[in-house]
Amino acid sequence: MTTTEQRRFTTRPGTAQGWLDRAREVAGVLAETALSRDRANETPHEEVRLLKESGLVTLLGPREHGGAGETWQTAYRVVREVAKGDGSIGQLLGYHYLWAWAARLVATPEQIAEVEQLYTSNEFFFGGAVNPRDDDLVITDEGDNLVYRGRKSFSTGSKVSDLTVLEGVLEGTATHVFAIVPSQQDAIVYGDDWDNLGQRLTESGSVRIDGVRVPWASAAGFVDKRFQALTYNTLNVPTIQLVFANFYLGIAQAALEAGLSYTAGNTRAWPYGGDNKESAGEEFYVLDDYGDLQAKLWATEALVDKAGEEISAVLHAEREALTEQQRGDVAVRIAAAKQRVIDVGLEIATRVFELTGARASSNSVGMDLYWRNLRTHSLHDPVAYKRVEVGRYALLGEVPEPTWYT
Amino acid sequence: MTTTEQRRFTTRPGTAQGWLDRAREVAGVLAETALSRDRANETPHEEVRLLKESGLVTLLGPREHGGAGETWQTAYRVVREVAKGDGSIGQLLGYHYLWAWAARLVATPEQIAEVEQLYTSNEFFFGGAVNPRDDDLVITDEGDNLVYRGRKSFSTGSKVSDLTVLEGVLEGTATHVFAIVPSQQDAIVYGDDWDNLGQRLTESGSVRIDGVRVPWASAAGFVDKRFQALTYNTLNVPTIQLVFANFYLGIAQAALEAGLSYTAGNTRAWPYGGDNKESAGEEFYVLDDYGDLQAKLWATEALVDKAGEEISAVLHAEREALTEQQRGDVAVRIAAAKQRVIDVGLEIATRVFELTGARASSNSVGMDLYWRNLRTHSLHDPVAYKRVEVGRYALLGEVPEPTWYT
Amino acid sequence: MTTTEQRRFTTRPGTAQGWLDRAREVAGVLAETALSRDRANETPHEEVRLLKESGLVTLLGPREHGGAGETWQTAYRVVREVAKGDGSIGQLLGYHYLWAWAARLVATPEQIAEVEQLYTSNEFFFGGAVNPRDDDLVITDEGDNLVYRGRKSFSTGSKVSDLTVLEGVLEGTATHVFAIVPSQQDAIVYGDDWDNLGQRLTESGSVRIDGVRVPWASAAGFVDKRFQALTYNTLNVPTIQLVFANFYLGIAQAALEAGLSYTAGNTRAWPYGGDNKESAGEEFYVLDDYGDLQAKLWATEALVDKAGEEISAVLHAEREALTEQQRGDVAVRIAAAKQRVIDVGLEIATRVFELTGARASSNSVGMDLYWRNLRTHSLHDPVAYKRVEVGRYALLGEVPEPTWYT
Amino acid sequence: MTTTEQRRFTTRPGTAQGWLDRAREVAGVLAETALSRDRANETPHEEVRLLKESGLVTLLGPREHGGAGETWQTAYRVVREVAKGDGSIGQLLGYHYLWAWAARLVATPEQIAEVEQLYTSNEFFFGGAVNPRDDDLVITDEGDNLVYRGRKSFSTGSKVSDLTVLEGVLEGTATHVFAIVPSQQDAIVYGDDWDNLGQRLTESGSVRIDGVRVPWASAAGFVDKRFQALTYNTLNVPTIQLVFANFYLGIAQAALEAGLSYTAGNTRAWPYGGDNKESAGEEFYVLDDYGDLQAKLWATEALVDKAGEEISAVLHAEREALTEQQRGDVAVRIAAAKQRVIDVGLEIATRVFELTGARASSNSVGMDLYWRNLRTHSLHDPVAYKRVEVGRYALLGEVPEPTWYT
Repeated sequence: MTTTEQRRFTTRPGTAQGWLDRAREVAGVLAETALSRDRANETPHEEVRLLKESGLVTLLGPREHGGAGETWQTAYRVVREVAKGDGSIGQLLGYHYLWAWAARLVATPEQIAEVEQLYTSNEFFFGGAVNPRDDDLVITDEGDNLVYRGRKSFSTGSKVSDLTVLEGVLEGTATHVFAIVPSQQDAIVYGDDWDNLGQRLTESGSVRIDGVRVPWASAAGFVDKRFQALTYNTLNVPTIQLVFANFYLGIAQAALEAGLSYTAGNTRAWPYGGDNKESAGEEFYVLDDYGDLQAKLWATEALVDKAGEEISAVLHAEREALTEQQRGDVAVRIAAAKQRVIDVGLEIATRVFELTGARASSNSVGMDLYWRNLRTHSLHDPVAYKRVEVGRYALLGEVPEPTWYT
Repeated sequence: MTTTEQRRFTTRPGTAQGWLDRAREVAGVLAETALSRDRANETPHEEVRLLKESGLVTLLGPREHGGAGETWQTAYRVVREVAKGDGSIGQLLGYHYLWAWAARLVATPEQIAEVEQLYTSNEFFFGGAVNPRDDDLVITDEGDNLVYRGRKSFSTGSKVSDLTVLEGVLEGTATHVFAIVPSQQDAIVYGDDWDNLGQRLTESGSVRIDGVRVPWASAAGFVDKRFQALTYNTLNVPTIQLVFANFYLGIAQAALEAGLSYTAGNTRAWPYGGDNKESAGEEFYVLDDYGDLQAKLWATEALVDKAGEEISAVLHAEREALTEQQRGDVAVRIAAAKQRVIDVGLEIATRVFELTGARASSNSVGMDLYWRNLRTHSLHDPVAYKRVEVGRYALLGEVPEPTWYT
Repeated sequence: MTTTEQRRFTTRPGTAQGWLDRAREVAGVLAETALSRDRANETPHEEVRLLKESGLVTLLGPREHGGAGETWQTAYRVVREVAKGDGSIGQLLGYHYLWAWAARLVATPEQIAEVEQLYTSNEFFFGGAVNPRDDDLVITDEGDNLVYRGRKSFSTGSKVSDLTVLEGVLEGTATHVFAIVPSQQDAIVYGDDWDNLGQRLTESGSVRIDGVRVPWASAAGFVDKRFQALTYNTLNVPTIQLVFANFYLGIAQAALEAGLSYTAGNTRAWPYGGDNKESAGEEFYVLDDYGDLQAKLWATEALVDKAGEEISAVLHAEREALTEQQRGDVAVRIAAAKQRVIDVGLEIATRVFELTGARASSNSVGMDLYWRNLRTHSLHDPVAYKRVEVGRYALLGEVPEPTWYT
Repeated sequence: MTTTEQRRFTTRPGTAQGWLDRAREVAGVLAETALSRDRANETPHEEVRLLKESGLVTLLGPREHGGAGETWQTAYRVVREVAKGDGSIGQLLGYHYLWAWAARLVATPEQIAEVEQLYTSNEFFFGGAVNPRDDDLVITDEGDNLVYRGRKSFSTGSKVSDLTVLEGVLEGTATHVFAIVPSQQDAIVYGDDWDNLGQRLTESGSVRIDGVRVPWASAAGFVDKRFQALTYNTLNVPTIQLVFANFYLGIAQAALEAGLSYTAGNTRAWPYGGDNKESAGEEFYVLDDYGDLQAKLWATEALVDKAGEEISAVLHAEREALTEQQRGDVAVRIAAAKQRVIDVGLEIATRVFELTGARASSNSVGMDLYWRNLRTHSLHDPVAYKRVEVGRYALLGEVPEPTWYT
């Protein structure tokens, strides 16, 4: 990306639609190099800069500090659009939105104000080190300060971020404490060991937290070293799960569009079909299968949008008003949306090759990118348990108990 | 249905939500006897009466004549709800809405006013004799009158209706003429030969039109024996195709609910599973599969709703404003919705038995009703061509040319 | 079936192929009336007589008593062929083969000889009252005799049989005793309450056992009131599970053939397809989908045949030689075959309608018979647990512990 | 591969089973480096040497020249086993078998004898340059010699082979001529441009034929410059299509085994499942899904084996005896087998990740290899047309007309 490109965003959109158009523009820029950067496993410094310069990083930030003050419904759609251009960058942006909202989820009003001003006015980008399947970071209480130590196997985006969300447990207690700290400090050591099948540009490698100091005053949601719990705190999981669904959807849409574009532009009719068709667009099975895939994708998109409306309403409502039942209703809907997009996305990413034909398997075309991206991140947590979550709700009327994955 | 039941609707709802609740109430009444009436192949006189008394028949009718003046989006949801109680009656109601709108589709403003007053103030129920795969009815021009003659293999609802929509071709020309005529007249002879696998209570048998007379003044859309064509005229096909999708969806929802209810109430855990589960609700596969089916159904519902919003906006806008492209966009979306609901509905209607267990195959339970209903009507026109319609749109950007099926 | 038909079998085939041809002939006779007998829920007295007269009943019986002395591999294929003509009668015959083999499974050599002579020379037909999900029958030891009492919810074929296999537990012990008794006696009371979706002609209703007396000498496998156990005893479950798979397969083949035949003979090309096709056989999607279904069915058939070879080898080998591992290997293969035929069969029975078109939903065509038959009996035990059985074998190398269902 | 490994094959097996064991041994050697060679896109010189040294290259060669004189059924299974170790090498070996049989397909008895002696006694490896979707090579008749010129976009294995099969058309005629020529000559120029998603080690890049001279005496099947046609000549397509199915099957089996092995050795139970499972082997969905995949794969394997028996019988029978109908019967069965293995293989290669969990997406595990290999080669010709081939046979009783793809 050249300097010219970096200056392309001289204004800020004023409407949700304007932000979607902006996201599409960003996606267009990303798409040009997405494959080559994937092959090169490039650290996305430039791409994060693009997200900042486009204004997308502060989409949820307060207007008084220069943010767009948009809703989560818009944020989800923006994540999806960006993921159409580059699934990894869509993921990074979606994670950023969650971390940028972390203060809202658990912090005090004063902390929220402070964090939102800080990141919005500086266009700071967020990462996190909160993988729940590792042991918690251990926090030592040193009076006015907390000190975090430990290791996380996966830490998405932190390396290319300005701020990192940490989570740990106070030594000798069961008390979890979130804090937001500068990403670039000696006490945070990146393993640079993310070498996976897909979502390669997310810098999701391991991280060692080697004595990160945080003032007690920054311990999110703590007043006098005590935390006041709300159901709203537990929205982090449905919120991020729908982030997943949205960048999966963007990837799936990109896969279908790549296939359609290749077929329309390059694929010959099968010469042994017994009639004299001139292009693949006259092949019944090509139209039939594209119709099937498109219809499935539209249905998935409609459900993802509906889930987005539902959780957006909840996220922007009063924190104290949220009930367990409401939280559960929306979490289950999101679980459903996520499983649909995984199934349909993988089907598209696999079957689309049958509609483009053999030459599209050339590495110069790179149509495998979508399957790799989808297949990799959709393993985040077992989709079977997401189905069970929906099944339990349908059969027994039970909402999931909030955990790190439900 | 007893006299008591017939008097239950003493008021009319004033909101869309109120009408949905009303539809649910009607569905509840229908569901009580849906299986026994299906077994008996009962002509649905009483059920049509229920639709009238509930006010659902005049949902789209003008308020000044006692109608609800509701939108098509509401009408679609009402059809879906009624179909949850009885798929056949849902179909009859949905067809009625189309026929009741037939004047709006093709007639002159004066004719529209006349038809809407007639049917709304009298709570008249519509049927039709317009199966396109038979030869057209032949119309003789006898000066001031037209006379229709011919035969249709399938004529849904006409037998239990007050008014029937006829369509024919003027002898010796290619001019099609629609007209609305009284259903109960000697010149309309019902074959009473509908004996099919499902949607048994729709009175979809053959009909002989044996000299039905219609004044030229009632020839829909004709002024001085000439017809002025609009793209809006061709909305009949997408409108009815989404009626299909909605009653299919209602049937699919009913199938899932029947399964869930049976499993929750009756199904034992498998005693050979190796642990000591107490109920089917503890079986992983039961929760997993119900979750899968529910998620698929939600996605389908979201797409059906989205298609409903889109065509409802078009149907209630200015007739003259509609472009071919707009008509095509919405028709394709409906084609997609329909194919999703067929696939998902049949899957639910088949797989749900695996979650209820063997005893639910008893005829006293009747869980086959949903598969039979769905399987039967979803053959209306080949779903493969609906997929092709969507595929052609996605691949080539083409909208379907208006025909009797697209 | 007229007297003429009953005399058609004046000779006995001498080869396996000859018996398959015979089975096909029988299937042809059954197919003529299968639909009307299903509609009438007719007790299959005549059909059992046909099985006897054709010689199929004694296919596994010793040659010295007039049996064919054929192998189980032939028996499985015969069941499949008969089920193509009538799924219910295929089931009855398959169950008969298992019951006729019950002596071989558990009895002493003397008892085996006696039972085989008895049933073969008399062309006796077997039923059973051994549903494991009910409580066991209770057996009172009255010295020289055993007396069985109790109830079974399902008892396939017993009502139309000559001999019935009973199973119960000696009062106050955990000792199970099998015995073969005359079916037509006052102490066996048939509930005549089988009214289910499919396999309607199997007389699978409840039965009350009201003091059936059996000499201790007839207690299968007992010598001096003590039973000597062999792994071979537990072959009843894999043997009957593959009987299931074979009549399912026959039903699935019949469904596909019915579809093919209807389409070839009746289905018109879709007139709105944009070209001028003359018959459904020119529709790409019709050929494509039939190809898909046929390929799936061939693969299923190949696996069912392979499983048949494997268990047939085991069933005809020395009883004492069988190891737990061998028994498990074959049981798992059968579990796999069964789940494939259920999946593929239901898919065929549902999708074939899309290839025949709407008119094939007429009750006079009766193409729903296959779905009803398959859907009903395939609920016998949860297919999910059959998948788990195969999965445990593949993942952990474990064979299933012999139970009533594995 | 070290010298030690190269000497491991000091004897030759004497039975089909012995050759399968040998193939498994070769596969084990290949599997050790399959992933690293794929990543490095390594030209498989060493691997072809291994095939030679193991004796597999002369499996079909006459015993009098040192070949194994085995059947095609064995050859197919050998291809499958080798493909389990390395899909690319399985493909190379399978193609080699076809080319080695090319003389039998079209040549005169004298030519057959000569070619078989040549390749068997020298352990020569075959490649080919016969991609039908390019223009034919042009052959100039220079009296005693033919001269081939032209270009093929894809030429599998030729670069690492000793002999190459050429096919072209005599200039100004419609006469096709096959010939076998030395692969390493100046007039054959390799493009070294195979850089595709999968089957990366097959050296399937382009080739320029720049004046390859062939004596008329070597023109396969020609006597006095005239060719005698037999139906047997057209067996090349079903023979190679079943080669495809067999290496696809080997890849699919390897994918399943890789998944099973990873899950058994590495995958933890899901800690949020609500009970205290200790390993993934206690997860219901893991067992359920592995069971489903294993059952599907067994069914596919059974059909592939059956097709192998059928074509092997035909290939080893008298050439003159083969009828169009027999050729068609077996071609259709192979078309069915191929489509099953593609569907099932891709499903396994995608779904297996859900059973291994997220960490198996690491590039050090390399479980994407199977999907890439399958997805790439299965695009060889449209599977939709293979389904249509089977559908046409089932519906209309028609066998496919021999072409380059049917």
